[in-house]
Amino acid sequence: MRTRAAVATQAGKPLEIMDVNLDGPRAGEVLVEIKATGICHTDEFTLSGADPEGMFPAILGHEGAGVVLEVGEGVTSLKPGDHVIPLYTPECRECDYCLHPKTNLCQAIRETQGKGVMPDGTSRFSTLDGDPILHYMGCSTFSNHTVLPEIALAKIREDAPFDKVCYIGCGVTTGIGAVINTAKVEIGSRCVVFGLGGIGLNVIQGLRLAGADQIVGVDLNPDKVPMAEKFGMTDFVNPNEVESDLVPYLVNLTKGGADYTFDATGNVKVMRDALECAHKGWGESIIIGVAPAGAEIATRPFQLVTGRTWKGTAFGGARGRTDVPKIVDWYMDGKIEIDPMITHTMPLEDINKGFDLMHAGESIRSVVIY
Amino acid sequence: MRTRAAVATQAGKPLEIMDVNLDGPRAGEVLVEIKATGICHTDEFTLSGADPEGMFPAILGHEGAGVVLEVGEGVTSLKPGDHVIPLYTPECRECDYCLHPKTNLCQAIRETQGKGVMPDGTSRFSTLDGDPILHYMGCSTFSNHTVLPEIALAKIREDAPFDKVCYIGCGVTTGIGAVINTAKVEIGSRCVVFGLGGIGLNVIQGLRLAGADQIVGVDLNPDKVPMAEKFGMTDFVNPNEVESDLVPYLVNLTKGGADYTFDATGNVKVMRDALECAHKGWGESIIIGVAPAGAEIATRPFQLVTGRTWKGTAFGGARGRTDVPKIVDWYMDGKIEIDPMITHTMPLEDINKGFDLMHAGESIRSVVIY
Repeated sequence: MRTRAAVATQAGKPLEIMDVNLDGPRAGEVLVEIKATGICHTDEFTLSGADPEGMFPAILGHEGAGVVLEVGEGVTSLKPGDHVIPLYTPECRECDYCLHPKTNLCQAIRETQGKGVMPDGTSRFSTLDGDPILHYMGCSTFSNHTVLPEIALAKIREDAPFDKVCYIGCGVTTGIGAVINTAKVEIGSRCVVFGLGGIGLNVIQGLRLAGADQIVGVDLNPDKVPMAEKFGMTDFVNPNEVESDLVPYLVNLTKGGADYTFDATGNVKVMRDALECAHKGWGESIIIGVAPAGAEIATRPFQLVTGRTWKGTAFGGARGRTDVPKIVDWYMDGKIEIDPMITHTMPLEDINKGFDLMHAGESIRSVVIY
Repeated sequence: MRTRAAVATQAGKPLEIMDVNLDGPRAGEVLVEIKATGICHTDEFTLSGADPEGMFPAILGHEGAGVVLEVGEGVTSLKPGDHVIPLYTPECRECDYCLHPKTNLCQAIRETQGKGVMPDGTSRFSTLDGDPILHYMGCSTFSNHTVLPEIALAKIREDAPFDKVCYIGCGVTTGIGAVINTAKVEIGSRCVVFGLGGIGLNVIQGLRLAGADQIVGVDLNPDKVPMAEKFGMTDFVNPNEVESDLVPYLVNLTKGGADYTFDATGNVKVMRDALECAHKGWGESIIIGVAPAGAEIATRPFQLVTGRTWKGTAFGGARGRTDVPKIVDWYMDGKIEIDPMITHTMPLEDINKGFDLMHAGESIRSVVIY
């Protein structure tokens, strides 16, 4: 079939909107009509050329929602008409990782996904001239239609609006999951969140949902405060306005150190501060942000020997097929908010404006509606 | 009273054996006759002058066992004749730390202990001329008699031999506790232990006790192999004999990475290797060793984002008054071994020979028997 897509033809260039060919689903695969997709910093990271594993030409996008149109041979858990969210972290429920209680990093299709192809080693996308175009993070939601493995699709309720729940495909789950799955924050905890972008806001609402007593937000931009307060931030700290060192200031503010801290900046210096303002004896620090290639975190081992724990999280520790439908329910039940974070929407033809808004720091999340 | 002690008069000098004055126990304190004491690397660290917090003159030693001679006003949990092990990490059961489920770092007397004095701010030790001598780690087991706070003494069974269970006061508990309390190793785990000194051996027997399937020991000295195997090591790796990089070698040896790794070297480069050979998705690395002042650990944050956890442990995460008597029981029941690790014993007069043996790498543990 032919579909409409925004193609990343090479690093550093705007996406090109064009018609592309899409082959139908093979065994174990599903054809999905994407109804909406968010534009995430990870797409920008790859498009910019900073991602050492980035490959071109490719159809980016990994934060979508849509409807199943057709299923390939052997697909049993989905049928045409099902509403789904694509999963860049799949859940096969059979590999060593899926069967281990401590991780969500299903490895069933990792190798081919990393190469921009389906599990059989080929791409379903091609130009009208027949040249192959690569998939991206196994999702390619910047195409109106796409093909994914069955294990990379979460089936969700049909009354959930695509243009909101698409955000659950990455940012919402990453932030809330870091709190609930990775940190396992307890009621009454004191917490610090570094970075009040989209991920930080979702960490904050995850903390509110988990019953945290104190939710300190740290950001250089005071314009972020009203939205962060709306999502549950109780204290704001602008490092530029702290006269002493930031770490002891935060330790004092949290009455001895935070029970849990979260880095949503990707800055390795901030990651160190996040660890060191965690409480002696039991504080845990969770790295969410993606650091530049080659950057390293560092601290004195004494910080760990005296009881702090350093962790990271990917896709919020969520097992997508199991957890994403629950998060959709939380949204539909009003337990979490998404609408205020979707600051801009646009048709696919204007997708590059979404990247411009991100660069300008004007959007929390832009969503393309097909 | 007057007692016999080995006094650290200044950094870098051998201990001086002399008679000293010891005041009796004040309120909440206990007078203990030390029957045996191990000589630990931490004593050496302070005596050498490398410890930035070291103070002199002081009576070192923190790995002892003995008998209560007299109790001060208000002491209720101990009486003369009780057998005890001094605790450099006390357990008051009342502070925020003791009441928190995730830590053993009781803070009740931390400040005064760090200053070499009892909780009332004074020392019980003095020279025969009346000049004060400082306590050390709240224990000072290099004196035949010493005074400790009640909360810094674990009451143990009376049939346990002092010259063996004194080692539970530091090394045994640190190693076994890192496995059981900090890592909480599950049956069937694959583990790597860096450093086959006394702590490493105790980690290894902790892993055997916890039911680990694979216990890899890593050390530059192949002479350590027979003892490590006796304690449960299943595989030995000498980094000097590995032709490829050490981390991928260990990942391969443990079939994808270790479930738990332990650093018992104090070398920050080794700490990094220990983290990075932990299994993607769920591997945890525990820092036990004490690094040189100012040394830092580093890694790429990607190591944590892909599911590894970096932790540390002090006194094996043990709550001394609660856990030390249990470990004494394990020894008496034959669940753990101590005797083969006590390679040398000596009277107090010869304590400097114990330090010489440590420097020469000839001892695992030297014990002074009073």
